[in-house]
Amino acid sequence: MAYRVAPLTKLIEQFERLPGIGKKSAQRLALYVLDLPKNEAEAFANAILEAKQKIRKCRICCNLTDEELCPICSNESRDKSIICVVAEPKDVIALERTHEFNAVYHVLHGCISPMDGIGPEQLCVKELLSRINGGGVNEVIMATNPTVEGEATAMYLSRLIKPLGVKVTRLAYGIPVGGDLEYADEVTLKRALDGRSEL
Amino acid sequence: MAYRVAPLTKLIEQFERLPGIGKKSAQRLALYVLDLPKNEAEAFANAILEAKQKIRKCRICCNLTDEELCPICSNESRDKSIICVVAEPKDVIALERTHEFNAVYHVLHGCISPMDGIGPEQLCVKELLSRINGGGVNEVIMATNPTVEGEATAMYLSRLIKPLGVKVTRLAYGIPVGGDLEYADEVTLKRALDGRSEL
Repeated sequence: MAYRVAPLTKLIEQFERLPGIGKKSAQRLALYVLDLPKNEAEAFANAILEAKQKIRKCRICCNLTDEELCPICSNESRDKSIICVVAEPKDVIALERTHEFNAVYHVLHGCISPMDGIGPEQLCVKELLSRINGGGVNEVIMATNPTVEGEATAMYLSRLIKPLGVKVTRLAYGIPVGGDLEYADEVTLKRALDGRSEL
Repeated sequence: MAYRVAPLTKLIEQFERLPGIGKKSAQRLALYVLDLPKNEAEAFANAILEAKQKIRKCRICCNLTDEELCPICSNESRDKSIICVVAEPKDVIALERTHEFNAVYHVLHGCISPMDGIGPEQLCVKELLSRINGGGVNEVIMATNPTVEGEATAMYLSRLIKPLGVKVTRLAYGIPVGGDLEYADEVTLKRALDGRSEL
């Protein structure tokens, strides 16, 4: 390309590395940021630096927080006897959006995936076990994704946790609300049949 | 939402303001950036600051550059007698990608749009006229988008430039290469017919 301006190219490359952002989108975003007033572009850059600098893992549940404990772990009204184990912080956000869960979480920060060289040591498994060993936990809900890696992680953890005398459960499988039987895949339908409940 | 961490929320909001980035994408991007190693997240923030700080308008063509003149205007082998007028820097990038155009550009930084309160004063029109008045220009190609605003801008400029004794041309309209007549709209088809050339 004959027209290259180093700082612009660098900014485009930075946007391009983000997930789901292609060449064209990266260019559009970079030009948009360049077009912002100076103070707003600085606010963007500072938000990145500040978030990176201040955010760390909660001492108890390993979720992201800017304090020693995350808002959920430090909430007195939350039921600490049930731990919902999720792979990523975004899963906590999704579950919190239901406004139905009043217990606490544990964020693994990934799933076991031997193909990618990710074993239990790379995840926050140690923290989960010591939390359970600390006592007061009655149930651990496995809320990892229904993927191969998510399933493997749930199986692995349940085998570690069950011997500690704690109930281990898994999120229900089934057809999504508002979904259409016609478009549901066979595996999901079979699981929906298996898990049927009385009306 | 019960789970809010101020620096993370702020970063999500910054991503959300970008064009074409919704709530979910913003969350995904913010969490991705947070997950980057510290030096890479800093590189991202610095790319924004550096681009914003260093990039300015080329003294001749108003395109974005980090020097006094953009690489195209300072290129000796470029034909300075033909000016291709575009609305945005991204249009220069698109045209340069053809590797077919060896003259120079002029970037207006927008189109005339009375609805949005954008008149010729807000655009780099003054710079274009003084450039033409400076002499040595034989042709001005209007390469604004084929939208209402782009057309209006092209018409407005051609009325200003023609009296200066300079040829004013417009990009050809027609069916896109690889397109399908069936899916071309009537206006485009009519323009394609009007602009037909002998084989």
